[in-house]
Amino acid sequence: MPKDNSVPTSIFVRRESEARSYCRSFDTVFSSASGSEMTDEDGRTYIDFLAGCSSLNYGHNDPDMKQALVDHVMADGIAHGLDMYTTQKQAFLEAFEEKILKPRGMDHKVMMTGPTGTNAVEAAMKLARKVTGRTNIIAFTNGFHGMTMGALAATGNAGKRAGGGMALHGITRMPYEGSLGDVDTLAFIEAMLDNSSSGIDAPAAFLVEPVQGEGGLNAASAEWLQGIARLAKKHGALLIADDIQAGIGRTGTFFSFEEMDIEPDLIPLAKSLSGMGLPFAALLLKPELDIWKPAEHNGTFRGNTHAFVTARVALEKFWSDDSFQRKIAAKSVALTTALGQVADMVDGAQLKGRGMMQGVDVGSGELASDICARAFDKGLIIETSGAEDEVVKVLAPLTTPDAVFAKGLNILIDAARDALAAHTSIAAE
Amino acid sequence: MPKDNSVPTSIFVRRESEARSYCRSFDTVFSSASGSEMTDEDGRTYIDFLAGCSSLNYGHNDPDMKQALVDHVMADGIAHGLDMYTTQKQAFLEAFEEKILKPRGMDHKVMMTGPTGTNAVEAAMKLARKVTGRTNIIAFTNGFHGMTMGALAATGNAGKRAGGGMALHGITRMPYEGSLGDVDTLAFIEAMLDNSSSGIDAPAAFLVEPVQGEGGLNAASAEWLQGIARLAKKHGALLIADDIQAGIGRTGTFFSFEEMDIEPDLIPLAKSLSGMGLPFAALLLKPELDIWKPAEHNGTFRGNTHAFVTARVALEKFWSDDSFQRKIAAKSVALTTALGQVADMVDGAQLKGRGMMQGVDVGSGELASDICARAFDKGLIIETSGAEDEVVKVLAPLTTPDAVFAKGLNILIDAARDALAAHTSIAAE
Amino acid sequence: MPKDNSVPTSIFVRRESEARSYCRSFDTVFSSASGSEMTDEDGRTYIDFLAGCSSLNYGHNDPDMKQALVDHVMADGIAHGLDMYTTQKQAFLEAFEEKILKPRGMDHKVMMTGPTGTNAVEAAMKLARKVTGRTNIIAFTNGFHGMTMGALAATGNAGKRAGGGMALHGITRMPYEGSLGDVDTLAFIEAMLDNSSSGIDAPAAFLVEPVQGEGGLNAASAEWLQGIARLAKKHGALLIADDIQAGIGRTGTFFSFEEMDIEPDLIPLAKSLSGMGLPFAALLLKPELDIWKPAEHNGTFRGNTHAFVTARVALEKFWSDDSFQRKIAAKSVALTTALGQVADMVDGAQLKGRGMMQGVDVGSGELASDICARAFDKGLIIETSGAEDEVVKVLAPLTTPDAVFAKGLNILIDAARDALAAHTSIAAE
Amino acid sequence: MPKDNSVPTSIFVRRESEARSYCRSFDTVFSSASGSEMTDEDGRTYIDFLAGCSSLNYGHNDPDMKQALVDHVMADGIAHGLDMYTTQKQAFLEAFEEKILKPRGMDHKVMMTGPTGTNAVEAAMKLARKVTGRTNIIAFTNGFHGMTMGALAATGNAGKRAGGGMALHGITRMPYEGSLGDVDTLAFIEAMLDNSSSGIDAPAAFLVEPVQGEGGLNAASAEWLQGIARLAKKHGALLIADDIQAGIGRTGTFFSFEEMDIEPDLIPLAKSLSGMGLPFAALLLKPELDIWKPAEHNGTFRGNTHAFVTARVALEKFWSDDSFQRKIAAKSVALTTALGQVADMVDGAQLKGRGMMQGVDVGSGELASDICARAFDKGLIIETSGAEDEVVKVLAPLTTPDAVFAKGLNILIDAARDALAAHTSIAAE
Repeated sequence: MPKDNSVPTSIFVRRESEARSYCRSFDTVFSSASGSEMTDEDGRTYIDFLAGCSSLNYGHNDPDMKQALVDHVMADGIAHGLDMYTTQKQAFLEAFEEKILKPRGMDHKVMMTGPTGTNAVEAAMKLARKVTGRTNIIAFTNGFHGMTMGALAATGNAGKRAGGGMALHGITRMPYEGSLGDVDTLAFIEAMLDNSSSGIDAPAAFLVEPVQGEGGLNAASAEWLQGIARLAKKHGALLIADDIQAGIGRTGTFFSFEEMDIEPDLIPLAKSLSGMGLPFAALLLKPELDIWKPAEHNGTFRGNTHAFVTARVALEKFWSDDSFQRKIAAKSVALTTALGQVADMVDGAQLKGRGMMQGVDVGSGELASDICARAFDKGLIIETSGAEDEVVKVLAPLTTPDAVFAKGLNILIDAARDALAAHTSIAAE
Repeated sequence: MPKDNSVPTSIFVRRESEARSYCRSFDTVFSSASGSEMTDEDGRTYIDFLAGCSSLNYGHNDPDMKQALVDHVMADGIAHGLDMYTTQKQAFLEAFEEKILKPRGMDHKVMMTGPTGTNAVEAAMKLARKVTGRTNIIAFTNGFHGMTMGALAATGNAGKRAGGGMALHGITRMPYEGSLGDVDTLAFIEAMLDNSSSGIDAPAAFLVEPVQGEGGLNAASAEWLQGIARLAKKHGALLIADDIQAGIGRTGTFFSFEEMDIEPDLIPLAKSLSGMGLPFAALLLKPELDIWKPAEHNGTFRGNTHAFVTARVALEKFWSDDSFQRKIAAKSVALTTALGQVADMVDGAQLKGRGMMQGVDVGSGELASDICARAFDKGLIIETSGAEDEVVKVLAPLTTPDAVFAKGLNILIDAARDALAAHTSIAAE
Repeated sequence: MPKDNSVPTSIFVRRESEARSYCRSFDTVFSSASGSEMTDEDGRTYIDFLAGCSSLNYGHNDPDMKQALVDHVMADGIAHGLDMYTTQKQAFLEAFEEKILKPRGMDHKVMMTGPTGTNAVEAAMKLARKVTGRTNIIAFTNGFHGMTMGALAATGNAGKRAGGGMALHGITRMPYEGSLGDVDTLAFIEAMLDNSSSGIDAPAAFLVEPVQGEGGLNAASAEWLQGIARLAKKHGALLIADDIQAGIGRTGTFFSFEEMDIEPDLIPLAKSLSGMGLPFAALLLKPELDIWKPAEHNGTFRGNTHAFVTARVALEKFWSDDSFQRKIAAKSVALTTALGQVADMVDGAQLKGRGMMQGVDVGSGELASDICARAFDKGLIIETSGAEDEVVKVLAPLTTPDAVFAKGLNILIDAARDALAAHTSIAAE
Repeated sequence: MPKDNSVPTSIFVRRESEARSYCRSFDTVFSSASGSEMTDEDGRTYIDFLAGCSSLNYGHNDPDMKQALVDHVMADGIAHGLDMYTTQKQAFLEAFEEKILKPRGMDHKVMMTGPTGTNAVEAAMKLARKVTGRTNIIAFTNGFHGMTMGALAATGNAGKRAGGGMALHGITRMPYEGSLGDVDTLAFIEAMLDNSSSGIDAPAAFLVEPVQGEGGLNAASAEWLQGIARLAKKHGALLIADDIQAGIGRTGTFFSFEEMDIEPDLIPLAKSLSGMGLPFAALLLKPELDIWKPAEHNGTFRGNTHAFVTARVALEKFWSDDSFQRKIAAKSVALTTALGQVADMVDGAQLKGRGMMQGVDVGSGELASDICARAFDKGLIIETSGAEDEVVKVLAPLTTPDAVFAKGLNILIDAARDALAAHTSIAAE
């Protein structure tokens, strides 16, 4: 029952560019959202296992953030202040220092980049090149870092890259852990870098996602990330940990690499950083690398003041003690169990990811998309990822109530069962 | 009386990257803002002639936008919906079609890019290259288009470009109108393009700001822009009018080129598009160019739902008839008069820009900065622009009440008088 | 009477790539050549006003060079010695120092590059970038510097550039003197470089031909070249004078810029350097710029030993006193006179070039090609140049006997008259 | 006993660029050469196991080539004819068709590129990009393809690449067979290309040396090369076999890949192609790929006529039957035996290469260089190769008489023994 040409959506078809995408999978018009659920204009409610692609880790419209934002607006709090000093930025920085940096022994500074992940990644790449005087940045297979020309060069997906319309420069591609079966990717990378005639220019940085979100929920091991960190140091390169999708609690800790014993030099953050899904991004950088001149990387919307307000609330509410982390851990176990049921239905299926960033590789994009489509019909918003969209990906809000979470997982299991039955019956004909 | 190391600002010095900039000129901590004025934490009020670099054309916290946003939030309106269909996007698109496109006979589609100007520019550049199969984009001296690698290549400023840390590709630089004194820049460009041995690759697009904001308030004439449009057509290139700073009423009409008899193929918009200073950007594109595949250019925060709400209010409130335009026109006259008084004080000073985007080139960045610094001490927020920061630039909210506008202009005149007196007395020693 | 598919040439059609070119204009099979004349396999003799595109400035098979080469070969002189020390290289370097460098007060060192002009240009570009740490090289409209990717980037011709199959980087294009009618190109270039927001990166070098051969025999004035030299110094860039076609006596002096009061840092030489048309190229470089590491730019055929032998003879025979230069000067006058007769026949025709590197711009490539084709039928080998092949170009050996020279010029005048008559009669129909 | 500053060589030090290299290892002034031996100005004779880096596969000054060249010159045969048709080119093409192409069932056309290997490689790269409309060319670790910017991008050596002075584009680097120990490099390459999110752009070509000369005498297996050919076909890419150093009989057959059951689309040739060490290069291309427009890739010295003369003699003399190949095979066996003796002296030493392109990896550049230096003192010219110069490389003329060959090999064995003794005694102290 596609609605794309129906009356309510016609303005979208008529006026919104063909670049639009999620609206094609979830073909209804949403009007409100709260916690783990979205409601469309017909009053139908959907459980949200997409969460703005991990931008809504605390759910939709958290009541405390809502209230703080409304209070701010009603008091004529600043909506746009360029990168001037504001009381809201001050409060955010203090909270970030207290709740995040200090407890983790980190001394990073915060650069307010343009309020998109790709902008934070571009800032990181620019700074790495500026600091080292080198051009080459090592990025990984299946990596996704954004769509502006610098970040796009580091992104692996062929279709996205082709959209650039010109050759993309400055990146050497290396295999992510596990991307080549049994091949020891770390040994491969080391051998290529150690060989002075390999044709690989000395790197400015390694740009790596500790867990690849768009790339198929590939989770690197601590050993592998430590190896990358060691190679970076050995070759005079910086380590950029792109924690845009995996960070802010998604894997169970604020940063996805917290328990991995590495110290990234540069950490782009975005998505759930504002807490409430507002556009906001930042680059954490070690103080000794902060060689930026004033405005050397600027942008009109850097430092979204509304986002400072909600982000501060999020930090204070969720990261003042370890109770939130413990809840995530418990929920992650439930998730693994449920996904295991899905995996058991499909020959060769594999569990992917970790924490609340897990999924099932069902072997084909067609099957994965069918499962997601059937889930949507049953009231669950869920998407695929991976090079061939072969992974059914669960990115539920970390705050999802247990009952809602269980209900969503059951829908997923039902959808998978139906999809497989349909596929089997087709195959049997 | 620099406050940068004082107690209230120490968190900024300690934790915010050296890339921060405006806060260095306006060294206080702002806490609220309304209409044309900002207030700092000590309760001091400043008239704002910067307006978020033209992101606050309707002033701070317009009461109707505020109310609509608060209502939306309190009703659990969607804060983040990726690029799904929402009632808020629907309402925005309908308003944009009714209030902007139809009255101007335009048939452009709207692409929700990442919510930054640079992202809209990158999308335009990518699309122009994709449509034409060519790489080369012609950009202009003193142009400013953003800081991500694609847009940065098109930006003229040497310092900004150096921040990229690597060579920037895909751009041929041509002189903007008036940038070379009496030289007929249009004839020059035409001669270079017509010569098959000039070494200039066939262009995918011309990327031009009708009025250059950062570049020094250079306003191109209708004849010159028509000439560029003609050359684009002649050489099979698209015309991209970057209206990020000059658009949304700043020059007196919604688009800065409305009265110029040109039809740009692609129009990046940002800054004041949301009405309230929220991060929001879009690319207008002629329907026949909409060859994007789904998600070929995507981004987590494309289509900021809060911004849809406020942008719709702005369109309905200010663009339903021509009364707003008439008020801008009147205010622009007052602005020209006042700036004329400043210009009269300085040998060789020149008025720059048009509409509510005017300034005075006082011949040196040192003098211009001194004027701005003295204005700030007197309670006026105002900045410079130009390659050497030699232009004192007025970007007051278009809604500034006449009395406040007059007061601000008087402060500016006083500051200029003081600065010149000081300079003269130094010169006399 | 095209022969391209006839029996004698069929092996060429069958086995030689479509990239072949001159053989298409001069469709016969040549078997021998002496002095200013070439003879084909049918015994027909042609006067050669092409001279290997200025590679045979001393004519074909100069008897002294022939003898020296034959003596060398018969004595088992080295044919190929990589870049080892040989008595032949020693003798060449000594002659070059004595006959060329010392009398001109030059202290340049000699780098034996691969034996092609494009390789010498690439070496110059690499060294300029290495010395300055900058990427950007300023090249000029209508410049021709070779066909390998570095040099091709600096070449203006659209067709040649398209052959590269990918975007070419690292070059900013500036207008050559006179390329834009009355526009003061030097002032334009200076304004673009002085504007820190022009988007032109600081240059590593200016790469300029004192006379543009392929570009249409455009001869820069001393004032203009001095201006370029001054701008190079002002902006910390090197001056590369590509004297591959205009050097080795072609304009009347050994270097084409000798009387221009400039001191180029780097001077690529090739074409007539060997004296006898053998593959040979070199890069002259100021000693303080010689920061090459051993083999940092190498090549199997660098330092062609046969060419050392003939080049030494050429230097000793023609450059031991000023008699050769005086003869060139006299012949150049005769050339100007004859070309004046051609120019007088064509409305708007213009004399181009200087010395023995002159031609007539007849306004269209069609007419110029017709003149050359008719000349060939009458026994004269002559070619066109320019962006549209609109210039009939005379590059006769500098040693052409006066009678042969006069005969060749008369053929040219006759061919022009016939061509114009044909064009006029077509136009009259 | 370094002679670099002595009287005879002072002109070199004073006037030749620091880029000079082989003369540093072989510090004497050579004056003549015949067959397998070179003689310096003091009358000392050296056995030549370098052979112009495989440019003198038929030895120095082959008497038949000498005579043909002298006859040609004395008869005023053309020395330089651009790319016009000449009887000499005709005879060369006929011989090449008869002796090389037809017997091997090949239908390639011949493109006369500039007379350097790097130019032939650039032509191949340009054509591959032009034919496929793609930019990316896959090159291999330790590959060496030349020093102009296009070919340099494909070259692996870090020092050579750094000489370019700017970032090099358009190449993706893949591991050569055996470069990573036991890793299945073919499987790796296939996995990277098959993954649509690997970030590797679709390739225009694979550029591979069947035996890597400069890279350390790495000889790919037939299986591996067939695998590369299969991947090229699978991904719509051309196969470029760079046979510049390994071709023209060096490995035992005219092309190094003859017995490998692959059909390269493009084959750059140079070095020994002229037979006598004269500058000459060509690109063989399958007829259906010959989409070049006239002069789209040109060059003054393309089609060196002297080289046509000697190359024709070489083809007729050595490739009319299989006797030459049988002699090479026999000599190759002797070479393997002798190198085995060297390898036996050094712990962990490895035999490298195949045919008359063999060497010993002695584990360190220091040791290999010491062996070569001692060999030179004993009258043998021999060089190293490999990323760290760790391979002692034998590139003797294929025509070396057995006695001379044995004598040279004995010198090598002695030099190795002496070097090892010295190293051991140092180590023992």
